[in-house]
Amino acid sequence: MDLASITVGQYNFTQNAFSFGLAVMAAASLFFWFMRSEVAPAYRMAITITGLVTAIAAYHYLQIMLSWQGAFEVSNGTIETSGAQFNQAYRYVDWLLTVPLLLIELILVMKLARGETISKSIWLGGAAALMIALGYPGEIAETGGTRFTFWILSMIPFIYIVYQLVVGLKDSIRKQPENVRGLINGAAYLVVISWLFYPIVFLFPLVGLTGGAAITAVEVGYTIADIMAKAVFGILILVIAMRKSEHEQVKA
Amino acid sequence: MDLASITVGQYNFTQNAFSFGLAVMAAASLFFWFMRSEVAPAYRMAITITGLVTAIAAYHYLQIMLSWQGAFEVSNGTIETSGAQFNQAYRYVDWLLTVPLLLIELILVMKLARGETISKSIWLGGAAALMIALGYPGEIAETGGTRFTFWILSMIPFIYIVYQLVVGLKDSIRKQPENVRGLINGAAYLVVISWLFYPIVFLFPLVGLTGGAAITAVEVGYTIADIMAKAVFGILILVIAMRKSEHEQVKA
Repeated sequence: MDLASITVGQYNFTQNAFSFGLAVMAAASLFFWFMRSEVAPAYRMAITITGLVTAIAAYHYLQIMLSWQGAFEVSNGTIETSGAQFNQAYRYVDWLLTVPLLLIELILVMKLARGETISKSIWLGGAAALMIALGYPGEIAETGGTRFTFWILSMIPFIYIVYQLVVGLKDSIRKQPENVRGLINGAAYLVVISWLFYPIVFLFPLVGLTGGAAITAVEVGYTIADIMAKAVFGILILVIAMRKSEHEQVKA
Repeated sequence: MDLASITVGQYNFTQNAFSFGLAVMAAASLFFWFMRSEVAPAYRMAITITGLVTAIAAYHYLQIMLSWQGAFEVSNGTIETSGAQFNQAYRYVDWLLTVPLLLIELILVMKLARGETISKSIWLGGAAALMIALGYPGEIAETGGTRFTFWILSMIPFIYIVYQLVVGLKDSIRKQPENVRGLINGAAYLVVISWLFYPIVFLFPLVGLTGGAAITAVEVGYTIADIMAKAVFGILILVIAMRKSEHEQVKA
């Protein structure tokens, strides 16, 4: 990453995006936790975790923002690097926790049989943790070859998860009440689509995209993808939980 | 913005206004969230979001205040600029989130049919986000021409929203219980009137109002307009929700 090529405008835009990410994630957590009492008890664990995912992300956006501010000195309209690091790896620490949890949200809100809930949580959550753990050595690697090797390794659990979301959950989704089937499908596709951004961006340094504009695009893009996969996804999970609670109350 | 022309008195007055804004917004959030349990379940999402809007604003007033303090050095009764930036753009980051949300508050407290709630939220919320996103490039532009172009573009969604609030909601307001009709109208007009401040102030730099007095007037004015459109507006939403809850309990 070539931090020295960042302009004042790019610095500010990225800083504002990090602050926006922090505000969205923290507000989303409060929203989910307040709305938790409005869903049936069976869905409260899903909504609690939904708020945890955005809370963990809010903490990491604060860390990333502080690290970004520390890496530069902006004075009288000019910018210089301070010599301090911009710690990109906070994102991996975040994902290692939040990505398994957000897949578990989706499984919990479906309220499958207990055995199925446990096995799907272990398999999908485990694959997600493995995917992030395999991405990290590539992110901090000094050579393009190592970066590419870990990209390939990380894509194996990635493809497994996408396959499970698109094909593996089909039977379970069919058994959901009709008024939420479309929403659950939508939530699964939202994960898949927002995730496409990450492996593509990971390859940027390999094709020489390391300048100020590329760094800005990557950081802002990650922020948008994170908001989609965590806050917007969380709203879908909440709406699903509210509709299912309503449906079950009418039936009872 | 000509920060160097700020006097010590103007610096202090603006600083106190930011601190006032932070205190009002944070207190308003706590008030709304504590009162949340006193309205019927159907209105709790509206009141939760009302508190989120002021909480997000409180966070941004903290950021703006810290940025303001960092931009100056006040010592022995004299003031100098420190070289650090005053990041005005935090306001846009705030509005991008809070303006769509406060329109959604108003729609939610009306408790329209589900389809109408969703379509009105998407159209009004989307227009609000577009309005802010189009204001931002004008705000950070270096030439008056660019500033003015984005002002014009931003006014299109602005006028659409004002039209919807004043004319488009008429039918839905007519169907509200009689004891809140006036309040809902009042809330819609409060938004429209407090919003008039923003596009006018946006044009100040174009007519040469960039000195210390103008900066102070703009920042204090924004703070008052924000308090009207978020905290005072939120109190109206809470009162509407409480009256409707009461009304529905009597009927049931």
